[in-house]
Amino acid sequence: RSLRIGLIPGDGIGREVIPAGKKILESLPSSLGLSFSFVDLDAGFDCFKRTGAALPDKTVKTLKEECDGALFGAVSSPTTKVAGYSSPIVAMRKSLGLYANVRPCKTVLSPAFASPTKTPIDLVIVRENTEDLYVKEEKTYPDPSDPTGKAQIAEAIKRISSKASWRIADIAGQIALRRDKMRQASGSGTSHTKQGMVTITHKSNVLSQTDGLFRSTAREALSQPHFNALKIEEQIVDKYYDVIVAPNLYGDLLSDGSAALVGSLGLVPSANVGEGIIIGEPCHGSAPDIEGKGVANPIATIRSVGVMLEFMDLPDAAEVIYKAVDASLAEGKLVTPDLGGTATTQQVTDDIIKRL
Amino acid sequence: RSLRIGLIPGDGIGREVIPAGKKILESLPSSLGLSFSFVDLDAGFDCFKRTGAALPDKTVKTLKEECDGALFGAVSSPTTKVAGYSSPIVAMRKSLGLYANVRPCKTVLSPAFASPTKTPIDLVIVRENTEDLYVKEEKTYPDPSDPTGKAQIAEAIKRISSKASWRIADIAGQIALRRDKMRQASGSGTSHTKQGMVTITHKSNVLSQTDGLFRSTAREALSQPHFNALKIEEQIVDKYYDVIVAPNLYGDLLSDGSAALVGSLGLVPSANVGEGIIIGEPCHGSAPDIEGKGVANPIATIRSVGVMLEFMDLPDAAEVIYKAVDASLAEGKLVTPDLGGTATTQQVTDDIIKRL
Ligand SMILES: CC(C)[C@H](C(=O)O)[C@@H](O)C(=O)O
Ligand SMILES: CC(C)[C@H](C(=O)O)[C@@H](O)C(=O)O
Repeated sequence: RSLRIGLIPGDGIGREVIPAGKKILESLPSSLGLSFSFVDLDAGFDCFKRTGAALPDKTVKTLKEECDGALFGAVSSPTTKVAGYSSPIVAMRKSLGLYANVRPCKTVLSPAFASPTKTPIDLVIVRENTEDLYVKEEKTYPDPSDPTGKAQIAEAIKRISSKASWRIADIAGQIALRRDKMRQASGSGTSHTKQGMVTITHKSNVLSQTDGLFRSTAREALSQPHFNALKIEEQIVDKYYDVIVAPNLYGDLLSDGSAALVGSLGLVPSANVGEGIIIGEPCHGSAPDIEGKGVANPIATIRSVGVMLEFMDLPDAAEVIYKAVDASLAEGKLVTPDLGGTATTQQVTDDIIKRL
Repeated sequence: RSLRIGLIPGDGIGREVIPAGKKILESLPSSLGLSFSFVDLDAGFDCFKRTGAALPDKTVKTLKEECDGALFGAVSSPTTKVAGYSSPIVAMRKSLGLYANVRPCKTVLSPAFASPTKTPIDLVIVRENTEDLYVKEEKTYPDPSDPTGKAQIAEAIKRISSKASWRIADIAGQIALRRDKMRQASGSGTSHTKQGMVTITHKSNVLSQTDGLFRSTAREALSQPHFNALKIEEQIVDKYYDVIVAPNLYGDLLSDGSAALVGSLGLVPSANVGEGIIIGEPCHGSAPDIEGKGVANPIATIRSVGVMLEFMDLPDAAEVIYKAVDASLAEGKLVTPDLGGTATTQQVTDDIIKRL
C-alpha cells in the first residue's frame, strides 16, 4: 500500500518534531508492505507573516485532494494581538471535516523519570472538534453600568448540535469497543478494565440546554444495540476511566490535565479524525522557550504517527511504533530535558528507529 | 468577637459534613476569644421538592442581614431534567455578590495514603464566580440543516466583563502577596516560591475577545504598583504554580483536576468571597453513592471553615484548624474510605477536634 502524507511543521518546535515523525514512517519495517511519499505544506504564524494567510488555500486543497494522512506540528500564538491572525488549527479541523480529536493518555514506566501518579493511567479522550466555543463567534460592547464608558463586556457563543454530539459519541463508542477487543486479545486489562467504558463529560447541571443536549444525544448514541457491551457513565469524578467523550473545550482542558498525570505534554499524541484524511498532531504547542535547541521531545509526534496509522486502518504499523517508543522509555537511557534527561530530539528518534 | 454563622447543609453528604464544620467552630480554643451562634438555613434539591424553591428568599435574606459567615454543603443534581429546578449554588453566589471562589490545593503527606504526585502541590485557584458561561443564558432551536426537523442546536452565552475580570485579578494578587508574606514569616518556601506569583489562565488564542478581555484586564490589574513584588505569568503549562486566576468555567475544571493531584476531592476546601458575607464550601458534591453511611470525609468542610475564617480576618483561628487537620493526616490512623481507610465522619472530626 502506498500512502501520501502531508507534512505541516508550522512554527517553533513543530519544525523539529515533524521531521522525526517523517523519519519514523520512512524507517518502518518493509514487512509491513507500506510505502510513503511526502508533501511539505505551509501553515502557522510564520506563514502568516510571509504570505498573509495562516492556512493557505493550497495547504487545504493539497490535503483534501492528494493526501491520505498528514502530520501537523504546532503553531505559535503571538503574545500581543495581531490583526487578521488566528490559529490555523481550528480552521483546518473545520475545513477538513475532522470532527474528532482523539487523545490517548497512557502512563509509561521508565527508570529515567517517575510517573507522577501512583496508579498508572490508560485512557483516551475523544474530543469534539468542530463546535462549542470554537465556533469563535464573539462581540464586544461598552459596559452599560459604567458611566465613564471605559469598561467593556465581551460575549462568545458556545454552540452544541445534536448532529455533532451524536457522531462524536458514536466514534467514542467504537474506540471503546476496539480497546476492549485489544485488551481481550492481549490478555491485558485489570478487573476494572474487564468491560469497555465510555464516560460522558458535561456540565448539564449548569448548562441544561447546551450540555444537556450533548449529554442526552451522547446517551442516545451510546444506547445503540451494537454498544450493548459497553458501560456508559457520566461526569468526571476521581476514579477509573477508559474512554472519555467531551465537548470541544472540556476536551481541551481535560487533556492538558491528563498530560500532567502521565509526566509531560511531550509524551501525549493525538489524531484529528473525520470523514476523510487523518491528521496526527502532538498535544504540545510550539514551545518558544526551547525552539531551535534541538531538544524537543519527539515522542508526542512519533506516537501521533501511530494514532494516525491506527485510524488509517493500519493497526499493525501503529503497534510497531508504540512498542518501539515503550521500549526506548523502558530502557530510559535517552530522554529529552522535559523528562529530566539530556538527549536531543535526534538521539531519541534514532533510538526509537533502531527498535522498530 | 461574636460571630453568627449560617449553616446550609443542602443535600446528600452535605448533611453529614456541615455538622462536622459546626462542631469544629464550637470546639475552637477559648484563647482565640471567639464565640459563635448558628442559624440553620434551607436550600437544595430536597428543599425544592418540599417548598418549590431551591434557594428560598428567607435563606438569602438571613445570610445578608444576620450572618457574618456561612457554611454550604452540597446539592444534588437530579439525573433527569426537573422543570423549574436549577442548582442554587450559582444563584446564591450571584445574589450575595460572592465574586471570588478561592480554592487552595495542597499536598499532605500521610502514611495512610500515597500522594498521587511525586512533587508536592501547594497552590490556590482563584475562580471568578459570577459570569462566564454561568450567566446561564441559553436557547435551543431546530437544526436548519436537518430536513426531518428532529436535529437540534443549542447555544449558550459566555460573558466576560472588564469589571469582574479586574476585581478577580485584584483579589488573586492580594492572596499571592499574603501567601508570600506567610512563607517569609514561616521560613518555608523553596527556590521556586521565593517570589509570589499569579498565573493568568485563559484561551485567548481561541477566544480573542472574551478571554482576550480577561487576559488584558487581569494583566492591567496585576501591574498596579502594589503588586510589583509579584511575578505574573500566563497560561497553564506543566510546571510550578502559586496562585492561579481563572474565569469561572476554567476555574471549575482546573480545581477538579488539582483535586485529583492531591488525592481526593474530599480534601479540597473553598470559600466564596465578595463584598460581605464569606461562605465556606467543600469542593465535593452531594455524593449520592455514600450518602447516609456516615463515612463522608469531613476534611474538605473543616478546611473550608479555615478558609472562611481567613477571609473573615481571623488567620490565627484558621491556622489552628489547618494544623489540627494536618496533624491528624500526618498520624494517618483515622481516614475515611475515599483515602483508603475505614474511619467514619464522626471519628475523623473528633480526632481533629482533640488536636485543636
Ligand atoms: C492551539 C489551540 C488552538 C489548540 C486548541 O485549543 O484546540 C490546542 O490547545 C490544542 O489542544 O490542540
Ligand atoms: C454544582 C456546580 C453548579 C458547581 C459549579 O460548577 O460551580 C460545582 O461544580 C462547584 O465546583 O462548585
